[in-house]
Amino acid sequence: MSDYETLDWTVEDRIATITLDRPDQLNAFTVTMADELVDAFDRASADDAVAAVVVTGRGRAFCAGMDLSSDGNVFGLVESLEPTLEDLHLRLEDPEIVAGVRDTGGRVTLAIYRCTKPVIGAVNGAAVGIGATMTLPMDVRLASDRARIGFVFGRLGIVPEAASSWFLPRIVGISRALEWVYSADVLSAEEALAGGLVRSVHPDGELLDAAYALARKFTANRSPVATALARQMMWRNSAQPHPIEAHRVDSLAMFFTSRGDGAEGVRAFREKRDPEFTGRTTDMPPFYPWQE
Amino acid sequence: MSDYETLDWTVEDRIATITLDRPDQLNAFTVTMADELVDAFDRASADDAVAAVVVTGRGRAFCAGMDLSSDGNVFGLVESLEPTLEDLHLRLEDPEIVAGVRDTGGRVTLAIYRCTKPVIGAVNGAAVGIGATMTLPMDVRLASDRARIGFVFGRLGIVPEAASSWFLPRIVGISRALEWVYSADVLSAEEALAGGLVRSVHPDGELLDAAYALARKFTANRSPVATALARQMMWRNSAQPHPIEAHRVDSLAMFFTSRGDGAEGVRAFREKRDPEFTGRTTDMPPFYPWQE
Amino acid sequence: MSDYETLDWTVEDRIATITLDRPDQLNAFTVTMADELVDAFDRASADDAVAAVVVTGRGRAFCAGMDLSSDGNVFGLVESLEPTLEDLHLRLEDPEIVAGVRDTGGRVTLAIYRCTKPVIGAVNGAAVGIGATMTLPMDVRLASDRARIGFVFGRLGIVPEAASSWFLPRIVGISRALEWVYSADVLSAEEALAGGLVRSVHPDGELLDAAYALARKFTANRSPVATALARQMMWRNSAQPHPIEAHRVDSLAMFFTSRGDGAEGVRAFREKRDPEFTGRTTDMPPFYPWQE
Repeated sequence: MSDYETLDWTVEDRIATITLDRPDQLNAFTVTMADELVDAFDRASADDAVAAVVVTGRGRAFCAGMDLSSDGNVFGLVESLEPTLEDLHLRLEDPEIVAGVRDTGGRVTLAIYRCTKPVIGAVNGAAVGIGATMTLPMDVRLASDRARIGFVFGRLGIVPEAASSWFLPRIVGISRALEWVYSADVLSAEEALAGGLVRSVHPDGELLDAAYALARKFTANRSPVATALARQMMWRNSAQPHPIEAHRVDSLAMFFTSRGDGAEGVRAFREKRDPEFTGRTTDMPPFYPWQE
Repeated sequence: MSDYETLDWTVEDRIATITLDRPDQLNAFTVTMADELVDAFDRASADDAVAAVVVTGRGRAFCAGMDLSSDGNVFGLVESLEPTLEDLHLRLEDPEIVAGVRDTGGRVTLAIYRCTKPVIGAVNGAAVGIGATMTLPMDVRLASDRARIGFVFGRLGIVPEAASSWFLPRIVGISRALEWVYSADVLSAEEALAGGLVRSVHPDGELLDAAYALARKFTANRSPVATALARQMMWRNSAQPHPIEAHRVDSLAMFFTSRGDGAEGVRAFREKRDPEFTGRTTDMPPFYPWQE
Repeated sequence: MSDYETLDWTVEDRIATITLDRPDQLNAFTVTMADELVDAFDRASADDAVAAVVVTGRGRAFCAGMDLSSDGNVFGLVESLEPTLEDLHLRLEDPEIVAGVRDTGGRVTLAIYRCTKPVIGAVNGAAVGIGATMTLPMDVRLASDRARIGFVFGRLGIVPEAASSWFLPRIVGISRALEWVYSADVLSAEEALAGGLVRSVHPDGELLDAAYALARKFTANRSPVATALARQMMWRNSAQPHPIEAHRVDSLAMFFTSRGDGAEGVRAFREKRDPEFTGRTTDMPPFYPWQE
């Protein structure tokens, strides 16, 4: 049961579902929703009862973007601040910077990036602005045939955020990313599929079943520790300037998993039975997380 | 009107067209053309009357590569120099290094990389050698059905240049990039499309219209400041080893655009009218350019 | 003729063929095979008689993964060690670390990464676990229609290794890489083709001919020095955070090749004849290898 204002949180079959839950506002994004999403992903990381996460939206939208309906300062910025890039390096956690300068969407996508469980986006309808960029650090995206996805920031005179300049080119290539950002087009599900943004398109009523089927495939007979390490290895190591960085982490990750769940995995393989893994993501090896 | 020897420069409808203009030499690349291209892209960046750039070639070729017709030293290298990688780190702007060692094509592609306006390549015919690699830092490439694109350096016993080893794998993936470089094949427009090098192929007579239509889409009701920031964010942040680098830049870029054109953008959105942006790329926020 | 236990090494027409040669064990990977592969790729780099490398498997498999049939410690780990990431930075070549911690597959893929010759994978059958990941630093992969490729580590409670977290997302994109790793599916040749993992699929009996045809295309009338530089430039420069890194290396590589084989290449081009390149990969320019 959920105690969030803007989200619904349920766990079934070891799969947590985070549902953006402001259907009357098309699940428009607010600072409260940002804080609750950060909390929910950190909770998914910390909860051994959760093996994977599915994210979707209540009603006909996934997330219609930043809630611009309120009066006043929708971006939370503090006029008196004169932030510099050096500030952001040194004072990123300073409450004044967090409240007045730090990109709200980026706090959410960094929480998804550091999540220890596979994250599946089930884009059930409009996903616009932060509604689009929040899906990018999810590992895979499935779309309903009613999905519409738009990186529409250019229409408002603002920039793509939520670290989307880091994530989007990794998913769809730099040229397509630039074209989508410049054009600010709202893409159909089929266009998103053709561009590699979503892995599959499903009839509206079948989207969540497809997402759960994939989540079960990702979690059945899997070691949570090995999965958590694999997720962070793929995201982090792939961005390093040399494969030797991956090699160092691989060596430790293989060493530790081989003494842990890997030993059971090999025994089960030899005995032609399903493995029974006992490792827990609350008990990760000491080198984790690296690059922090 | 243009005062270049090797280029034609025109601006219409806020779109600058840079036309490689040595049609009798199939627009073969010379040191003069390189210097003029650097000047033209820096001019596009600095000119608030320019919102986007289209690059094409006069006549039946886009650019047939380095002009090898002249006698003497086609690469401009100085035999007495013994350059080291350390030299190139310390003395990159030293006139002796610039004249005798620095890759001429790379001076052009770095100027395109740092351009503050969207850049569209309209490849109207043969684009070979530097004629191919100079298109890679352009944001998108459109091709005529007569285009032929070749990374043919291997045939001459030289290496791919113009920072193409950085750009090409970002656009088409590392394996395809390696195959094209090793084979030194001249690709048809359809092969370039299938490989993701160009976004679309057009009948010869319709190429420029398609390029201008896209340029207008990229510029209509757009904030030049937000577009300039978005361009640099996508190219620069996507190559960083961790998304936190993007998050820091996002935070500043969102902060500054929200106080500037973004405030007007949100007002216009609420009032259901077109925005009237007033920001200018000659007045970028103080954190720009980062990573220099 | 080969003096390896687990490999066959032949050279014909300047193309070395490395054949994984434990057909009765489906070419399962052992520490001896790892040591011999490292030796074979370093030998290919050092031998001027070798212009390209083709890798395939004897019999019906390419490589069925780590040999789990032996009793005892299949991963070579030393229980008493408590390695840290700092150890791996400082003591990577320490015999104790090499024997007890370093990922064996990664020693192989780093040897392929640093190879000075184009490397073509001819995946003739099952390529599973290290059998799949060892192909990733090869420049291109061709598959027989009998190929089956699987990143199956998750089934064993271990992590993807051999620096595959660095290589795989570069080849197929981060989302597809994550899905394949999470699902641990064994992909058909057609699935591997659709995902961009292999460049082409061939009837079983035609695979090696296709691989050799490609190898000849990569080597005919090519400068071995320019090819070696191009290979390392593409792999290394594409992972740098800024194109200026590529520009520095380009400048040196163009400078040195232009004084060497490039001068002959331009002469031959002007004289409309095939070039006769004399550069040797045993005599690389002094800035090579950079980033070591």
